[in-house]
Amino acid sequence: MKISDFGGEFKLIDHLASITRMDHPDVLMGIGDDAAVIRTGAKTGPFTLVTTDILLEGNHFKSSWSEPEQIGIKAVECNASDIAAMGGKPAWLFSSLVLSDNTTVAWAERLYKGMAQACRKYGIVISGGDMAKGETNTITITLLGTVSADHLCLRSQARAGDMLIVTGTLGASAAALALLQNELEPSHYLLEKHLIPTCRLDVSDRIAPLANAMIDISDGLASEIGHICKQSCLGADIFLDKIPLHDDVRNAAGQLGTDPVQWALTGGEDYELLFTICQENFKKLSNSGLNFHHIGTITSAKDTLSILDKNGNRSRLPAGYNHFL
Amino acid sequence: MKISDFGGEFKLIDHLASITRMDHPDVLMGIGDDAAVIRTGAKTGPFTLVTTDILLEGNHFKSSWSEPEQIGIKAVECNASDIAAMGGKPAWLFSSLVLSDNTTVAWAERLYKGMAQACRKYGIVISGGDMAKGETNTITITLLGTVSADHLCLRSQARAGDMLIVTGTLGASAAALALLQNELEPSHYLLEKHLIPTCRLDVSDRIAPLANAMIDISDGLASEIGHICKQSCLGADIFLDKIPLHDDVRNAAGQLGTDPVQWALTGGEDYELLFTICQENFKKLSNSGLNFHHIGTITSAKDTLSILDKNGNRSRLPAGYNHFL
Repeated sequence: MKISDFGGEFKLIDHLASITRMDHPDVLMGIGDDAAVIRTGAKTGPFTLVTTDILLEGNHFKSSWSEPEQIGIKAVECNASDIAAMGGKPAWLFSSLVLSDNTTVAWAERLYKGMAQACRKYGIVISGGDMAKGETNTITITLLGTVSADHLCLRSQARAGDMLIVTGTLGASAAALALLQNELEPSHYLLEKHLIPTCRLDVSDRIAPLANAMIDISDGLASEIGHICKQSCLGADIFLDKIPLHDDVRNAAGQLGTDPVQWALTGGEDYELLFTICQENFKKLSNSGLNFHHIGTITSAKDTLSILDKNGNRSRLPAGYNHFL
Repeated sequence: MKISDFGGEFKLIDHLASITRMDHPDVLMGIGDDAAVIRTGAKTGPFTLVTTDILLEGNHFKSSWSEPEQIGIKAVECNASDIAAMGGKPAWLFSSLVLSDNTTVAWAERLYKGMAQACRKYGIVISGGDMAKGETNTITITLLGTVSADHLCLRSQARAGDMLIVTGTLGASAAALALLQNELEPSHYLLEKHLIPTCRLDVSDRIAPLANAMIDISDGLASEIGHICKQSCLGADIFLDKIPLHDDVRNAAGQLGTDPVQWALTGGEDYELLFTICQENFKKLSNSGLNFHHIGTITSAKDTLSILDKNGNRSRLPAGYNHFL
């Protein structure tokens, strides 16, 4: 059976994880969150976080659209976003590069300079890697970080009644991609969101001690809410008109005659954070000057993800991006 | 400039490392050894080891020659070999899989079962990963381990006068590959060495506290001796007739009319350990029943790697395998 017929990437990962299930007292969280949580030191933490992400030419980036420095920055940002989603701080990066035979030294150098620039911004040290020759330029980053026990945010820790919050507007990366694919020119804002996204390490450290569950929005809001609900054994109501969209996203949707909310729900690559938090703690965040978007509520209706429009009409959430479908 | 014209993989890695050089007190060893050494816990250790290796279809394995389980085993063994070479114990594995559209679920499942089998053997926990669709099946493993300060073996710690020791015979994997490429059938021994190599975690723990420098033989003996000498600012004399070869390797060389020692020197993928040790400590190892091969001596002649034949004639060592040359 082909992977696409099986149900795609997430289904296959679940399946492979289930047939090789291994528990270990020092693996506090293995497969199934933004990063693994490992006890490498004292029993009570801080713990080590490990995340890994593949970026493939033609799939996750296009050399014809991106400068090599931008690809390098994006590779670091999307991994750092996973560490942010756990409430942690990124620290040590390992880059495995598959480079095609006609890749120039200058291209590799510029890619690496982009990576180094993003690393310096977050105090990450490039600590190793591997390199091989292949057909498709591929950048696989493994990023390690640290998290204290009181900052650790797992997908499974949402509670019924929690507010669902996102840290910024959504759909910009998907809007830029749609415009590029239609040979239309995205605005500077949209293009930047797509080519060199910025993770939310600027705020994650203040959210982490107050939030219950957290995840980064890399595969679309619908998919991420689904992950939180599935792992917390809960459901969610999403307020359709509260999903935050930038004006440029609305304009792009107008240009293409499409619904901008779909980009937010299923587009992916936003690298904003989605978290669940009780009302009292959300007030604390707001009082400290952090203004985020309240887009819904966690409910006790297990596995039931609903969208509510202005008139209170309910519909089920569409699925997020899945690499093999 | 193409990477091959620049001098290949090792030269490019050195170059990229130099333009993005970052030092950090918790990175005891970054780029430039079998694994990075990171302080994630107490100041005096144990330290965390991190290694990453890319295995590409057509380059590091061929689905037409290998069962998927064998590819999975090899992927784990060659990473575990890097942890063994540092004197450490492997612990947590992350697998990033690029799978082509026509890869079946059964193939991925069998690959994963092979990985899990090898992991169980060493007490490694599969703790995460990523998956993406691409043209070429690619397995990028990142393996974390732990090492105590008194077991840590760096490439840079060789001392003039040290004995150069290898843990087993060399060239079997290269011999099998040469036979396969010539459509000849390798012996069971050779084929196994090529398709499912076994790292030397069975002995590394006893070598580590006694050795000075250690490295695993993944790119050929010549290349590995070169790494140790370069990083220790020393040289080496290799005794040509002491390089250990299995009878099957000699037979294969006879079949193909080639020199079996070249396979040992430049063939790669042996996954034996090469270490340097003082005479007194080598006696201790031998007394404890470990019989290894004494193939040369570390000298103070910086960057001078010589091969001495039976008659005492000297020649320079050839270079090891380099992915872009």
